Amino acid sequence: MELEAKLRQVCGRIEPLDESAMAQASARLDSLTKPLGSLGRLEEIAIRIAGIKGEALPTAGKKAVVVMAGDHGVTAEGVSAYPAEVTPQMVMNFLGGGAAVNVLARQAGADVFCADLGVNADLAHPGLLAYKVRKGTANLCRGPAMTREEALRSVAAGIEIAAMLVEQGYELLAAGDMGIGNTTSSAALCAAFGAVPVEQAVGRGTGVDDERLRGKMEAVRAALDVNRPDPLDPIDVLSKVGGLEIGGLAGFMIGGAAHRRPVLIDGFISTAAALVAARLCPRAVDYMIASHLSHERAHGMLLEAVGLRPAIHLDMRLGEGTGAVLGFHFVEAALRLMQEMATFESAGVSKE
Amino acid sequence: MELEAKLRQVCGRIEPLDESAMAQASARLDSLTKPLGSLGRLEEIAIRIAGIKGEALPTAGKKAVVVMAGDHGVTAEGVSAYPAEVTPQMVMNFLGGGAAVNVLARQAGADVFCADLGVNADLAHPGLLAYKVRKGTANLCRGPAMTREEALRSVAAGIEIAAMLVEQGYELLAAGDMGIGNTTSSAALCAAFGAVPVEQAVGRGTGVDDERLRGKMEAVRAALDVNRPDPLDPIDVLSKVGGLEIGGLAGFMIGGAAHRRPVLIDGFISTAAALVAARLCPRAVDYMIASHLSHERAHGMLLEAVGLRPAIHLDMRLGEGTGAVLGFHFVEAALRLMQEMATFESAGVSKE
Repeated sequence: MELEAKLRQVCGRIEPLDESAMAQASARLDSLTKPLGSLGRLEEIAIRIAGIKGEALPTAGKKAVVVMAGDHGVTAEGVSAYPAEVTPQMVMNFLGGGAAVNVLARQAGADVFCADLGVNADLAHPGLLAYKVRKGTANLCRGPAMTREEALRSVAAGIEIAAMLVEQGYELLAAGDMGIGNTTSSAALCAAFGAVPVEQAVGRGTGVDDERLRGKMEAVRAALDVNRPDPLDPIDVLSKVGGLEIGGLAGFMIGGAAHRRPVLIDGFISTAAALVAARLCPRAVDYMIASHLSHERAHGMLLEAVGLRPAIHLDMRLGEGTGAVLGFHFVEAALRLMQEMATFESAGVSKE
Repeated sequence: MELEAKLRQVCGRIEPLDESAMAQASARLDSLTKPLGSLGRLEEIAIRIAGIKGEALPTAGKKAVVVMAGDHGVTAEGVSAYPAEVTPQMVMNFLGGGAAVNVLARQAGADVFCADLGVNADLAHPGLLAYKVRKGTANLCRGPAMTREEALRSVAAGIEIAAMLVEQGYELLAAGDMGIGNTTSSAALCAAFGAVPVEQAVGRGTGVDDERLRGKMEAVRAALDVNRPDPLDPIDVLSKVGGLEIGGLAGFMIGGAAHRRPVLIDGFISTAAALVAARLCPRAVDYMIASHLSHERAHGMLLEAVGLRPAIHLDMRLGEGTGAVLGFHFVEAALRLMQEMATFESAGVSKE
């Protein structure tokens, strides 16, 4: 009960974007040596970040990507091409710097954090953000994935992680996931909210074959039948068919918004978390920036349901925040263009 | 006649991609800690660059973007929202470092070169690559834009510029354009090759209104009627309805391919040049990498006609190589992932 009140309080702290900073950013963009509006959605991104940060000429600042990890009881149904033990193994890989997201973050000048929200193993590493709520969810085909209290705790952990990174001076955040089985939970979550019809919500994830795809579909149908999540109660949906890392990511997005920080959204799982965040606090969406369109077939519909449009079409389907970290380059590009380009006046270029 | 023979010779020097390097790159990607194929088209890019450079584990190396500039006699028909004097003004802006492409190149760690292929002004700047073939094209609504000899000279200049940059150690190239009026020439060029129907080839360019859009359409129809370019003779098409910077860019792409360098293609004009290059030497396409999908409506069809698929969807419509330079980040990402990621074995992650 206390956690519910606290969540409502954080959501209430999310402010509208700063219209005056946005108007100034827009005027600045129109003074630069380029045809009006010709930088397309880079201009929208620059204007939005001005509104988020409340500055007419913001810089990108320090960047962080957080990979939130959790295990999923539904793996017992054989829904993934990989064994559940891969979740803790990959956590160690993130902490050791060898995963795809580490490489992409080095390229983008971003720091990688890895948070354990619910890995089904005892993990010990000085770099790990230890926020384990429980050791993996229960099998959502047989009953709720977790209790309401646990779902609230996962969201609260995400909020806390966002606050900690803001405290450490990070200004641009990205949200990634790791959790064998989590495309199944995410599909159930989308379907439960009515964002994507159940037949279209289930995809191949990291690469299941036709037989496993049918199994995933059955698992999602069973999850919805057995649990009957209430689409008007996002925490009910999260607890019954979600995941611990998904709750953490939703909280992270809400926390980022409450601190006026832009949060880059990654692929299917990250966007499922964005949907939870959006249903909890619609205003949080103003602080989200879409990055890529995943190969996972429901991702496009899911992004649309949240109100986001992707910029990167590379058919990636890896998670970890890899798409979001690629998106850092565009955010940085948008802000640098606004900062550094010559104006028509300074360059002596005719306006018309 | 000598120029035609030289062009045939350069085209003949373009080698097939190195299959062995590609097979090694592919095997390497499959050993990395990620689901098979989950990096999507980043994997295709990494494999292709291995094939282009003939190395299993290539690095991106020094990057250059060349902005080729030329003027267009068709501006007399009022086809652009901007006056022709903007072409030389923007050339000075590129050389002064204040244009959008300069900002994006600084971000990507690339050098910007600007080449005068046919600007209708006397330009003097120590940084300018001076390859002026003539001062702007003639009005293609009234007759050929240039002579066959001039078209061949523009292509030869582009080949020479590519060779010079390779000589200077640049390993990754990008091709951008500047030329008031050049979406009109590019539309005529696409239609002449039959790549895009004339009604769909004409778009708003840097932002013309409905009336000017109708004028552009009439100009393109007139260009095709008056000149009757032969679609089976790419130099005939280029000389009658093309542009000097478009010829230069086509030559640059052919030259890059002949030196086994990947060339990033930019927006509508750059892709029109890619189509000329592709019709002159089909194998040059193997060395091209698409970057963004422009807001210009025919760009998607044009990319498809060349055999390219874009990765960046930001509704940009600026030219200058801005989209291609954003594409540098993806090429670098693809190669760094292949270089730096841990393998299943080194990280102790289960494969299945």
